[in-house]
Amino acid sequence: MSVIEELIRTLGDAVLIGDRITERHRSDASLTGRNLPSAVVRPASTADVATALSICNTHRQSVVPQGGMTGLAGGANPDCGDIVISMERLSGIKEIDTAAATMTVLAGTPLEVAQRAAEDAGFLLPIDLGARGSCQIGGNLATNAGGIRVIRNGVARDNVLGLEVVLADGTVVSSLNKMIKNNTGYDLRQFFVGSEGTLGIITRAVLRLRPLPAGRLTALCALDSYADVVAFLKRAQRALSGLSAFEAMWESYFRFNCEAEGRQFFETAPAFAAIIEQDIHGQDGEREQFEAFLGQALEEGLISDALIAQSEKEAQSFWRVREGHAMDRLLPSLVNLDVSLPIGDIGRFAEECGKVLSARFPSAHVSFFGHVGDSNLHIAFSVPDADQETAHQVDAVVYPLVAAYHGSISAEHGIGTLKRDFLDQSRSPAELDVMRRIKNALDPNGILNPGKVLR
Amino acid sequence: MSVIEELIRTLGDAVLIGDRITERHRSDASLTGRNLPSAVVRPASTADVATALSICNTHRQSVVPQGGMTGLAGGANPDCGDIVISMERLSGIKEIDTAAATMTVLAGTPLEVAQRAAEDAGFLLPIDLGARGSCQIGGNLATNAGGIRVIRNGVARDNVLGLEVVLADGTVVSSLNKMIKNNTGYDLRQFFVGSEGTLGIITRAVLRLRPLPAGRLTALCALDSYADVVAFLKRAQRALSGLSAFEAMWESYFRFNCEAEGRQFFETAPAFAAIIEQDIHGQDGEREQFEAFLGQALEEGLISDALIAQSEKEAQSFWRVREGHAMDRLLPSLVNLDVSLPIGDIGRFAEECGKVLSARFPSAHVSFFGHVGDSNLHIAFSVPDADQETAHQVDAVVYPLVAAYHGSISAEHGIGTLKRDFLDQSRSPAELDVMRRIKNALDPNGILNPGKVLR
Repeated sequence: MSVIEELIRTLGDAVLIGDRITERHRSDASLTGRNLPSAVVRPASTADVATALSICNTHRQSVVPQGGMTGLAGGANPDCGDIVISMERLSGIKEIDTAAATMTVLAGTPLEVAQRAAEDAGFLLPIDLGARGSCQIGGNLATNAGGIRVIRNGVARDNVLGLEVVLADGTVVSSLNKMIKNNTGYDLRQFFVGSEGTLGIITRAVLRLRPLPAGRLTALCALDSYADVVAFLKRAQRALSGLSAFEAMWESYFRFNCEAEGRQFFETAPAFAAIIEQDIHGQDGEREQFEAFLGQALEEGLISDALIAQSEKEAQSFWRVREGHAMDRLLPSLVNLDVSLPIGDIGRFAEECGKVLSARFPSAHVSFFGHVGDSNLHIAFSVPDADQETAHQVDAVVYPLVAAYHGSISAEHGIGTLKRDFLDQSRSPAELDVMRRIKNALDPNGILNPGKVLR
Repeated sequence: MSVIEELIRTLGDAVLIGDRITERHRSDASLTGRNLPSAVVRPASTADVATALSICNTHRQSVVPQGGMTGLAGGANPDCGDIVISMERLSGIKEIDTAAATMTVLAGTPLEVAQRAAEDAGFLLPIDLGARGSCQIGGNLATNAGGIRVIRNGVARDNVLGLEVVLADGTVVSSLNKMIKNNTGYDLRQFFVGSEGTLGIITRAVLRLRPLPAGRLTALCALDSYADVVAFLKRAQRALSGLSAFEAMWESYFRFNCEAEGRQFFETAPAFAAIIEQDIHGQDGEREQFEAFLGQALEEGLISDALIAQSEKEAQSFWRVREGHAMDRLLPSLVNLDVSLPIGDIGRFAEECGKVLSARFPSAHVSFFGHVGDSNLHIAFSVPDADQETAHQVDAVVYPLVAAYHGSISAEHGIGTLKRDFLDQSRSPAELDVMRRIKNALDPNGILNPGKVLR
């Protein structure tokens, strides 16, 4: 019996083949996938996942786990002949423990559904990113998602306390821990978070919840140099316990997006703009402290101007510029890079990177922005008629420079297939060898998401 | 040539044998070790560690890594015939990067030395525990140390950004990352942190530094029930961004230590006492906000009394009670257990645990205290003439109860040898199997700290 016949006989309607396989299973948001998988399994329980993997493992059948398909690195794209395990039916909040401040959730639950459930219970689920409406918790954990709130509550890895995972051979490993401290042997959740579906399929997680802030104070600041950006960041981290975002925009990015939005926040375009946000708790004096902090930074010349949002709407107008909705106009010729570097070196790197890219692509529009407080820089690159080949050329120019600065070629997007050929720019042969040893130990037949992360 | 001859020929004076081996290499602070190792290697460089491991691996020679010997689980104790690798000569701060807020430090550096260097540079190194004067950074990371500041900045795992590790075969794996976001394949530092020297020897680390607070506000509060302790914790987490400690003491623990210190903080002994601390930043209104928070908690009956320390000395008098220096009087008949449980269940667990222990050991003094904000409970147990066998009997009574509450038999002390036989109370056969697969993948000859964590 073929693997697909056996899957259908065992899991019935959960297995889609032929015309019942939809386009969404071909590619993630990078839109680089072209291949239809040979079948899509849509498990409704952990046991279904275990059954599917056990059958596939016996047949040495390659399997590609899929969540919300919002990734940008090709990590969920099937090759011809792969079988997809798509998690959307394994969805739902199983428990919110208000004393422990934890949520137990199925992997296929959309992030936004989990966020709302947390808020309804009076908590903040700190994992947050633009794709919140479509992306799923399992994918967020498998790719160790980042986002704009990392400076306060960390990356996805820092917000998971327990996991249930199915290994390649169908073994269910349940570590649904709710405790913050637990030193009973190796911390298995860490092996699977960020492994992009190559070591096991996450089916359930215990997430850590945080207190829901009563509100946020938001300011848009103008700065003269990258050195000032770093000094202002350090000052904000020292003075503001509730600092929840620190985002920087280089001049060309800020100007482009302000013009597109028809807004002029400052009389002259500053060399750098920064958005800072502070969580507040409804206590007296919080706004005054925030204003005093900015006033002092102005007085000392750390910042040259500052606007404090007087309403939620005004805060959103700052964020619209940062989110760069106007950049979509440059699609499909836009290449968005996601690197990280030691915070002190980002300014120098951006300068050098801009020069190198302009020399190689004279007609290019290059701009920089990012989560500077998390050492994360995004590079928006655009030339007319850019395609996948152009993107690869840009990678080949930028990543060796990242390596020279001891940076990382992927801050939050992961490796998938699109960055796989550059992984050695950030990881040594010894590191890659350890990764392969771990991969072989947990998936000896190599059926789980083959060709992703590691060749 | 024997392994020791080869080590001496290659590393010379770094190898101690015979009378040159001192008592400190026999046992950690649990004082349960009796064995002298056959040699002690004291490497002065990562290359020395690599050489020593390569030689030992070729000879299938078991190796026990040692740091400051302050562990409590026997994790650094040698068996007869083991060779110790002791890290004290691999000591020193290599770099403090003030923009990135990182410290690069050698593994043998005493924690307190690293803490002072951070403070001198205007930063807080958030790893902190009572043994700070003797324990070493490498040991702190290998055991994923906890302590009293976890509620604000996490455990050791959360404060390491990069590692250099030597594998069993002598391969040096260098991942000295300084970035907060880095999603380039498996997060190798996580494999080694908390593995108690069974997967590799940590030689160097990049630690994350935090802003140094300008000061701290400390309060000692009286509460009527464990439900109030949880409600007060939630309230504090919601209202105080800078909450840096939340410690609870059950009545008998608090009373015993107050009497021993000759202090009476409250008119009548409360059912529970809690210490809370808040980091401050030198801004106006911080003390008033703290007072207002406590005032409201009093008004609503969450707490029945509160003392705010008016001086550093008074704050220390609160902490002396919590640290329980007076408990030393019960030595050597004191057994100290370190478990964790979902926060909401700790009160019920402590009640049941007290009853079960009193039934089994009618003359016992049992008291409870702990880092409740981190789900961590310590149990102080004492009977006259308690010995290692008594400790084992207590473990055998308490750990199954911990398992019934879905708790962890080791919150921060680790497993070592002393808790190894109870590991299956907190980890399933599938989890233990994954741990063994990882161990075999990274140390196929099983030379690294054999018998620790896993049998």
